[in-house]
Amino acid sequence: MRPMDVSWLEMIATPAALVDLDRVDANLQRVARYTQQHGLRWRPHTKTHKTPEFARRQLEAGAHGVTVATVREAEVMAEVCDDVLLAYPAVGEERLGRLMNLPSRVRLTVALDSVEALHHLGRHARTAQRTVGVLVELEMGMRRVGVATPEDALSIARAAASTPGIEYRGVTFYAGHLRAPGGALGSEMRAQSERLALFVDTLSREGLRPDIVSGGSTPTLWRSHEVTGLTEIRPGINIFNDRNSVSAGACAWDACAYSVLSTVVSTSVPGQAVIDAGSKALAKEEGFDPSGGYGALLDRPEVRVQGLSEEHGLLDLSRTDWRPRVGELVRVVPNHVCASVNLHERLYLVRQGHYVAAHAITARGW
Amino acid sequence: MRPMDVSWLEMIATPAALVDLDRVDANLQRVARYTQQHGLRWRPHTKTHKTPEFARRQLEAGAHGVTVATVREAEVMAEVCDDVLLAYPAVGEERLGRLMNLPSRVRLTVALDSVEALHHLGRHARTAQRTVGVLVELEMGMRRVGVATPEDALSIARAAASTPGIEYRGVTFYAGHLRAPGGALGSEMRAQSERLALFVDTLSREGLRPDIVSGGSTPTLWRSHEVTGLTEIRPGINIFNDRNSVSAGACAWDACAYSVLSTVVSTSVPGQAVIDAGSKALAKEEGFDPSGGYGALLDRPEVRVQGLSEEHGLLDLSRTDWRPRVGELVRVVPNHVCASVNLHERLYLVRQGHYVAAHAITARGW
Repeated sequence: MRPMDVSWLEMIATPAALVDLDRVDANLQRVARYTQQHGLRWRPHTKTHKTPEFARRQLEAGAHGVTVATVREAEVMAEVCDDVLLAYPAVGEERLGRLMNLPSRVRLTVALDSVEALHHLGRHARTAQRTVGVLVELEMGMRRVGVATPEDALSIARAAASTPGIEYRGVTFYAGHLRAPGGALGSEMRAQSERLALFVDTLSREGLRPDIVSGGSTPTLWRSHEVTGLTEIRPGINIFNDRNSVSAGACAWDACAYSVLSTVVSTSVPGQAVIDAGSKALAKEEGFDPSGGYGALLDRPEVRVQGLSEEHGLLDLSRTDWRPRVGELVRVVPNHVCASVNLHERLYLVRQGHYVAAHAITARGW
Repeated sequence: MRPMDVSWLEMIATPAALVDLDRVDANLQRVARYTQQHGLRWRPHTKTHKTPEFARRQLEAGAHGVTVATVREAEVMAEVCDDVLLAYPAVGEERLGRLMNLPSRVRLTVALDSVEALHHLGRHARTAQRTVGVLVELEMGMRRVGVATPEDALSIARAAASTPGIEYRGVTFYAGHLRAPGGALGSEMRAQSERLALFVDTLSREGLRPDIVSGGSTPTLWRSHEVTGLTEIRPGINIFNDRNSVSAGACAWDACAYSVLSTVVSTSVPGQAVIDAGSKALAKEEGFDPSGGYGALLDRPEVRVQGLSEEHGLLDLSRTDWRPRVGELVRVVPNHVCASVNLHERLYLVRQGHYVAAHAITARGW
């Protein structure tokens, strides 16, 4: 392994999640500059780090609030933030009950795509005597959640505007299916603008012009300004980046701030080395990279993790002359950083190769 | 959802990991009978449940000890068991240091495949003034870890037999690549016996006949007796089973004791329903089932989880007339139970549809 102070690394249990703070700073500054330049509000998704300390860093760098996917994330992020968007349908008594118990200083907004979910939310908001904002979730081609037609969006927006306890604030969508690297995305970005305009125009004609139009994803991050009418973006992965961000053209390899420190535990099978980072440390997520694999070495990106068992990662040595010894330390960049972070208890923070601190990943679970 | 007492279910946060204790009992009794009938020792792998209470149940049902993959699992299982096999190369100072700190009453055995790992282990054992057993890990076709030739096995066995602090106890292997359902496994089981005999004969001729020959996996569980010379099996998944166990022919669907309780959160896209169990609750693991998907509903196995985002599971409704409402509860059997359990903080225990207790999953992490 290259420029790292290995003395402290040998004291910690591998696999361990490392975060390079210099790279985090650079990643945050880049998105802060971009959103400022284009007049977009920045509401990072905290599901990537699940750690209040990193949410605080995002807010200090200029974020206007945070996005969460679970009530646990909302509870944890409320420790450091007064403006929380739950980008997830708030369905179920337990979920709604805890959501209403967030500190009253928190400006809460919820995305939803059904009148049922709206009615439940309204009932809980009135019981808790708080005002909850609502964004209508739009289906923009990913076919996961969201209303498919402007008429359906209008029904929910109208209901939101007339429900006591609820404040209609706008629309939201997630086009997570768009990931073509390079210039191939141009026509998709235009199509997104056109589809979005259908919704916004219908709502505006009926006096329900959305104040907030919230979108964006990490693969399309730097082209968010091409989506006409967008007011806010919610990138998550961008704080750390991962192998998929690089494959999608969203960042360079040296913008990867997260890696899993691992120990080589076996070299008995020729052509490969086995590390102690398996699917329970890296997550078994198919990548965008056509060469396959579940990750690659930070210091030797030509060495891929070609196979994963629960506690074994198989390094493919076919494209390198490097032959690791048993006991050697390596750092792996996973395909999907959010899924990997979620498997760890803490993040070890590093600056200039030296240990700085560890943060507990407190927003795991639900 | 069918026969369940839903009153308590609505009090807990979904997604939640449920375990049906009646099915666990039946699964444990079945393997206890099988191993007894065939004179095999039973050393279940605890990576599946990572919970000392379930290890205790296995020991009470007749298990002779436990298998672990990590030091954390060893530490936790040592609370309830005096005989622990670490089926993982014990490499690295931190790992070895903690391993030697296990209570002295614990009979410890370690699998390894290199002389380097043996030397490190020996040094730590002598420093800690304890005797550590060693099994030589054999490569039996999976190409993950293990020595490939009888000569290499002999080198390590000889070194183990002559290293102070180390006791040579035998050999171990894991043929996790064998998963053909039905009768197609016959020739593979014979090939496994033949390959194993090569190793055992070589070792025996040199006075290093293995006392322990440890193997087995859940897909080939009920055919373990066909492997000549095997003394011990280490099934893990079998306590809970999963969709892959069923696909591999190792159990019936109603032997699945583990499921993830989930809430339907959106039905806005026709032909599908979205539940709140995504890849952070079920694990994104490709299955053995040729129809694809990441899991299926316990009560409606024809309904597959066809897609997963982090907090979204997409149910394919194309093979059912059932149309769930938003807020409805369902139970999902994941493809790979070990990977799913590892994503949860606790297991909710159920008997006859009623809540019994919750166990913290304390052996997660490393």
